[in-house]
Amino acid sequence: MFVNVPGVTRRYGAIEAGGTKFVCAIGSGPDDVAAGERFPTLQPTETIEAVIDFFAAEVRDGGELDGIGISSFGPVELRPSHPQYGHITTTTKAGWEDTDLAGPVERALGAPVGFDTDVNGAALGEGRWGAAQGLDTFVYMTIGTGIGVGAVVGGNVAHGLVHPEMGHVIVCRRPGDEYQGACPFHRDCLEGMASGPTLEARFGQPGEDLAGSDGDEAVALIAWYVADGLRTIVYTLAPQRIVIGGGVAEMPGLLPAIRSRLVEILGGYPGLPEHARDDFVVATALDGLAGTYGAFVLAERAAGFPAT
Amino acid sequence: MFVNVPGVTRRYGAIEAGGTKFVCAIGSGPDDVAAGERFPTLQPTETIEAVIDFFAAEVRDGGELDGIGISSFGPVELRPSHPQYGHITTTTKAGWEDTDLAGPVERALGAPVGFDTDVNGAALGEGRWGAAQGLDTFVYMTIGTGIGVGAVVGGNVAHGLVHPEMGHVIVCRRPGDEYQGACPFHRDCLEGMASGPTLEARFGQPGEDLAGSDGDEAVALIAWYVADGLRTIVYTLAPQRIVIGGGVAEMPGLLPAIRSRLVEILGGYPGLPEHARDDFVVATALDGLAGTYGAFVLAERAAGFPAT
Repeated sequence: MFVNVPGVTRRYGAIEAGGTKFVCAIGSGPDDVAAGERFPTLQPTETIEAVIDFFAAEVRDGGELDGIGISSFGPVELRPSHPQYGHITTTTKAGWEDTDLAGPVERALGAPVGFDTDVNGAALGEGRWGAAQGLDTFVYMTIGTGIGVGAVVGGNVAHGLVHPEMGHVIVCRRPGDEYQGACPFHRDCLEGMASGPTLEARFGQPGEDLAGSDGDEAVALIAWYVADGLRTIVYTLAPQRIVIGGGVAEMPGLLPAIRSRLVEILGGYPGLPEHARDDFVVATALDGLAGTYGAFVLAERAAGFPAT
Repeated sequence: MFVNVPGVTRRYGAIEAGGTKFVCAIGSGPDDVAAGERFPTLQPTETIEAVIDFFAAEVRDGGELDGIGISSFGPVELRPSHPQYGHITTTTKAGWEDTDLAGPVERALGAPVGFDTDVNGAALGEGRWGAAQGLDTFVYMTIGTGIGVGAVVGGNVAHGLVHPEMGHVIVCRRPGDEYQGACPFHRDCLEGMASGPTLEARFGQPGEDLAGSDGDEAVALIAWYVADGLRTIVYTLAPQRIVIGGGVAEMPGLLPAIRSRLVEILGGYPGLPEHARDDFVVATALDGLAGTYGAFVLAERAAGFPAT
């Protein structure tokens, strides 16, 4: 159990807003969860109402919340001065375009809300309780239906004009790979070439069902493109560690293949021995819950506690 | 003239350590320079001695320095806990490998030294006095003999395991471009395909001498690859602005060509109107002195004044 002030246990709400489900929890952190619930992602109004109802009932029964954190699918608007702050904006998720998520939650529950992307939230979770503890500059990459990356730089999540969208960086086509790419915006960017659906498109069956030579080939393909993307991330952010989660990342042999290919294409520059170590690219330590855990960190920061 | 405390003018040393020359200045900032000097980059011992002698004489004549900033060519070691902190490390510049630069300066002059890469320094300079004033997340890219990029994220320069090396991100070959690439590490990374020497290698004469159809083709080539690199930077750092300097960047028509190509390959995602504005990708406002100016900011921070 973590506490921010000796003897005082805070009570936070954590929301991981995903494209298929919303995961909600109440507590002082992941080791001290008083209540939790999952809601399917239906249309915005009914989904957000269900989430608010859950927290409102918990508040009635257990007392006020000190803060609420939301790790959300996106794109989202994160500029506090922007009229659409707290909204999911140009998403391809039907019905959810231009949906205010932080606003209704904050108004209904009366607690300060911290709002960020799902992957930035997951990065914060890995930094506090997971595979990136003790580091201040690292990334979390999820490889699943899409590819998303959250970055912590100098202890804070990286935001600028918008949030990063590292799933869409350029990769170079693997010789012999004629697949056109699945990204509706760029076709053959990282996500377009290495997300889960690309395996089904190439091999005719989902990645988890591939075995034998198809399985080996699938691992080699994903490793090729993910390593390209990670090389870009190494050169742009110089992370101390790269944490990888998501369904595709569970393919046997994928992580070692990514490590091996990454070291090969870094080409010895800047030649750090750390890049070749097995603890440079590692698996998530939070078993699919990094985003929910990160929402506790967002809640804590919204409540006015400094980054730790 | 800038001062940090009302009525008190600080006195800083600024050093831009480049591969061909070291630029040194003393003052409270670029609008208040009491003395300046340039030294050719010879071998390490004689170059560093010349720099120290310059500052030592100025200290005898005009008083102590509150801090010294060094913007250096690299790669450099920036981890304060590392035994080689303050060194130029695995550089290809003959004689300079594993050279301690910050150490001798600090010991000889007795003032706190702030040390960073040339391009991180230049980014700080542009943020304070140049083309990125008022922003907290932006990049400075120089396109010259090499391609380097400095990043300010949330008001601070981005460091992690090492400093970023964004000149080495992946780009995709322009159809018809058979040039093999000039990077000794990766061959056809951004720097390998779009630095100044690649123009001479392709066209048989330096970029500044190219005219007519060769000149047009050179602009189209550089714009192609730089836009690829900037797309990567947009997706990884989400900068509010991109500032471009360096000799190659002065080619007529290059900046508009970069802007146009970048918007095209962003492909509408995440679709921000800001990316299409003429003030998103802009020219340096500091005329080759961004790195030296940035050294004043590094000096100021080393002296204990907070980021402004």
